[in-house]
Amino acid sequence: MNQTPDTDVLLETAITAAKLGGEILMRYLRDGVQMRNKSDNGGKSYDLVSDADLESEQAVAGHIRSQFPDHELLGEEELKGNPDAQHLWIIDPLDGTNNYAHKLPQFAVSIAYYHNGVPIVGVVFNPARDELYQAVRGGGAFLNGMAVRVDDATSLSNSLIGCGFYYDRGEMMRSTLSAIQSFFEQDIHGIRRFGAATLDLCMVGCGHLGGFFEYQLSPWDFAAGRLFVEEAGGKVTDAGGDALTIGLSSVVASNQHLHDAMISITAKHLP
Amino acid sequence: MNQTPDTDVLLETAITAAKLGGEILMRYLRDGVQMRNKSDNGGKSYDLVSDADLESEQAVAGHIRSQFPDHELLGEEELKGNPDAQHLWIIDPLDGTNNYAHKLPQFAVSIAYYHNGVPIVGVVFNPARDELYQAVRGGGAFLNGMAVRVDDATSLSNSLIGCGFYYDRGEMMRSTLSAIQSFFEQDIHGIRRFGAATLDLCMVGCGHLGGFFEYQLSPWDFAAGRLFVEEAGGKVTDAGGDALTIGLSSVVASNQHLHDAMISITAKHLP
Repeated sequence: MNQTPDTDVLLETAITAAKLGGEILMRYLRDGVQMRNKSDNGGKSYDLVSDADLESEQAVAGHIRSQFPDHELLGEEELKGNPDAQHLWIIDPLDGTNNYAHKLPQFAVSIAYYHNGVPIVGVVFNPARDELYQAVRGGGAFLNGMAVRVDDATSLSNSLIGCGFYYDRGEMMRSTLSAIQSFFEQDIHGIRRFGAATLDLCMVGCGHLGGFFEYQLSPWDFAAGRLFVEEAGGKVTDAGGDALTIGLSSVVASNQHLHDAMISITAKHLP
Repeated sequence: MNQTPDTDVLLETAITAAKLGGEILMRYLRDGVQMRNKSDNGGKSYDLVSDADLESEQAVAGHIRSQFPDHELLGEEELKGNPDAQHLWIIDPLDGTNNYAHKLPQFAVSIAYYHNGVPIVGVVFNPARDELYQAVRGGGAFLNGMAVRVDDATSLSNSLIGCGFYYDRGEMMRSTLSAIQSFFEQDIHGIRRFGAATLDLCMVGCGHLGGFFEYQLSPWDFAAGRLFVEEAGGKVTDAGGDALTIGLSSVVASNQHLHDAMISITAKHLP
């Protein structure tokens, strides 16, 4: 099978899977969820996981496998699919884990389908606010069925800029703070830090944020959101302005117009 | 009249006024709103106002005056009431102006009633998300009718910390970034910047944020939210740990347990 599967089926599969995952997250939130440290990060107090993440990922993966048994699945928790696969699903069963741990309703399930490394479908679902973001390559970006566009600001001084810190308290954190200072010196309307990269990207696509940057993200953090931005008329690269690959990467997203101005700041402060 | 008016009437007046203001904000948002720079801040590109703020303030003030014609009104736009008045209403007709300008649904109307300098009633309404936060002195804190409490974290390393930057791109901005770095060095779960101080305070009251700090706020930014935090079991002081007054002030809010740890950081970096 060399062809891309039918995009309607891919999209419907992604949406159904995202809602299954979202239901599980909300159930754990209602019933009380026990967060614990991830052992693979030396047990850092801010790198959390829970049965909710794991069960959400299993439900998402189970639904996708029921539709596409021969596709590869790559995810944050236990899915170790090959990033170079022809048919690749990239899954974050819970983006914004720290918000979730504090019942702060800014978290999401993120699901993308890539064909030979090219993003074809991206779905992001925030179950706490019932926000469904979806994009299909060449088909535009939609929030709860309404078409959205990036904003049209041509200067940083007319924009809000989102940022993230990943799980780092060293050089990357200091670089991020330096970059924020440089953005302020361009008289931006303000900096924003909401705590869930996939939703930050969607906010660029919806035109709330003129741009967003983070110095390190995993592919499941940006796989769906980057397509949403692109389909909303924006641009996404790494912090040096190069094309994204499916691996650990810095990420800069913008409404296009602001991209060069953003890169000139993010590249200068690269950790 | 030396007595505090009936708190039920004060509360109902504040809620009705907040909803009137919120309706106006949403109408301008739907119809398209023209933002402009505030002339009294040298026309800085990030200090915005619009007809929406002004009309919201007029509606809020009109309703309160219809109930309490002899009370003083102090507000962000045109209300210049005496802060030392016996009966004082403190009004922000639109907190989170920059979010509002970008249609980012994190903004609010904030209304408080103070009696001889003591907060008696506080109401914060986010019309875009239909979130009504209310508190009456001695009566607890409620979000959409549900009682809320601050969280019970006893260590910064188990907490999200919110912050704000006010309208400053100089020393205060750099102090804020230094304080953020110090918080990260305490292994906090993360920093958050949502862009509307009055809602940030409410998020401390709801237990999402363990604490919040900002090095300069106006009384209308914190007058209602500080009572919400206190009634939810938290504590609010200035950044040095002293009691708040009704004037320009730094603000630190916490769940109580984290207060000393927060002050030790915010005081060290005071601009």
